[in-house]
Amino acid sequence: MSHRRAAVIGLGLIGGSIAAALRETGVYVRGYDRSPAHARTALRRDLVDELDDDLPHTVAGADVVILAVPVLTIVALLPALDLASAPDALILDTGSVKEPIVTAMATLTEAGRAIGGHPLAGDERAGPDAAHPALLRDRPFVLSPSPRTTPETVARAQTLVSSIGAEAVLVPAERHDRILARTSHLPQLVATALAGALEPDDLRLAGPGLRDMTRLAHSDPTMWAEIAEANRDNIIDAMRTFGSVFAALSRMIEEGDFAGMRAAMEQGSRQAAALRVKESA
Amino acid sequence: MSHRRAAVIGLGLIGGSIAAALRETGVYVRGYDRSPAHARTALRRDLVDELDDDLPHTVAGADVVILAVPVLTIVALLPALDLASAPDALILDTGSVKEPIVTAMATLTEAGRAIGGHPLAGDERAGPDAAHPALLRDRPFVLSPSPRTTPETVARAQTLVSSIGAEAVLVPAERHDRILARTSHLPQLVATALAGALEPDDLRLAGPGLRDMTRLAHSDPTMWAEIAEANRDNIIDAMRTFGSVFAALSRMIEEGDFAGMRAAMEQGSRQAAALRVKESA
Repeated sequence: MSHRRAAVIGLGLIGGSIAAALRETGVYVRGYDRSPAHARTALRRDLVDELDDDLPHTVAGADVVILAVPVLTIVALLPALDLASAPDALILDTGSVKEPIVTAMATLTEAGRAIGGHPLAGDERAGPDAAHPALLRDRPFVLSPSPRTTPETVARAQTLVSSIGAEAVLVPAERHDRILARTSHLPQLVATALAGALEPDDLRLAGPGLRDMTRLAHSDPTMWAEIAEANRDNIIDAMRTFGSVFAALSRMIEEGDFAGMRAAMEQGSRQAAALRVKESA
Repeated sequence: MSHRRAAVIGLGLIGGSIAAALRETGVYVRGYDRSPAHARTALRRDLVDELDDDLPHTVAGADVVILAVPVLTIVALLPALDLASAPDALILDTGSVKEPIVTAMATLTEAGRAIGGHPLAGDERAGPDAAHPALLRDRPFVLSPSPRTTPETVARAQTLVSSIGAEAVLVPAERHDRILARTSHLPQLVATALAGALEPDDLRLAGPGLRDMTRLAHSDPTMWAEIAEANRDNIIDAMRTFGSVFAALSRMIEEGDFAGMRAAMEQGSRQAAALRVKESA
């Protein structure tokens, strides 16, 4: 089944980019954002075909509903959108934590047509001004079915994701959340702690490495506090693992074990290299 | 006094880039690298005018000697270069830790003409293949005099640094080493620990943020083990500061203090923003 009318809830970086990419494939996109300024920017930048300021009305008539708002907002909106949308409309979200969302999806009346999603793309900038149709191109787009998602819905979501140039990757929600705690949520918290450890005097002698390492600290604090709440146990695990690797490095430096340090750095270098081979592949 | 003949010891990323930038200003550059392959690459890429495979001979006749090798190698080479070079040749190094170097410089026979230096530039790549004359352009180039460096030597070094387009910044060695522990050495160790905390499975779902955060983990382990040894006390202090900021974040997440977390993230965001304003200025 090919989609013709999409409703996109949340017109920030991710929602706006998906909307624009869907438009390029010929889908008619109706957009909603609770911020009137964001909504107007999305329309002015041609990310959407039309705006709506009434949530149930936005999704009425759509054959696919994209939820691109913060995690806890997605959970809160799902029941109303389930009722307001056509019962066979595909419901797909883009939240950074999947377990609370697919758990909520499984309780919907029309649960078979809902599936969790997470496009692994981003930009240091946020909002509809930074959105563009190529943002997700060639990037992984995780799909996490709920226990009630039908195989037909999985196939529809895969087709939709491929149509906008992203790479659909099926990953169970629980496993997604464990991995993302290490690959996304932990780096965010490390960047915040690193920026927090600087002294004002330091800025004059900062190099490009420090800029790379603190770029993530710019991200929206409210969104990240929500992610920390929604994925708390996995994040605590990831922080403990990092903390013990970091403490081992500290001990080596304190004890003058520079051979051990060199070995640890060689291992880190190999891991970082593997990451980049994977990313450029 | 304007320089006409330079000897550059170490033709990696930094040494090769300084050599190439000096050549562009009309200075004749003789280069030395203990790796014959590096030396040949530097000559092939026109970073130097000629090669030499004898260290004392490389510096004979030069009116400026640039030492662009690892920190402990600089300390080890200084006495021989002091004897082999003309007594009024400027000696300038590029090591990442300044105190051990200026301490060694102060013991030279001709100590007045030696000054510590550290160009704050870099690239994830290393070696003469990555060197280019613009690498240091508009970047800070720290100059750290030893207690015996003459004012004339400071002025000569400032002129040399400006001539290749970098911005000379006078910073005492002890202060440089304290700041760089936070702005450079700590981020390096954090990147290594972060890469070390990943699991093989994670690579498939890595985003651009993780790539930024682990890029530094690629750096040369031998060079970094040396830096850790040379700047040990300051690095331990910086690791402790970071560790306590990170532990506070962990506690907030464990205790569900998401308001506290949001405040910490806002502070980190402000620090990161200040850094970028400074860098783009």
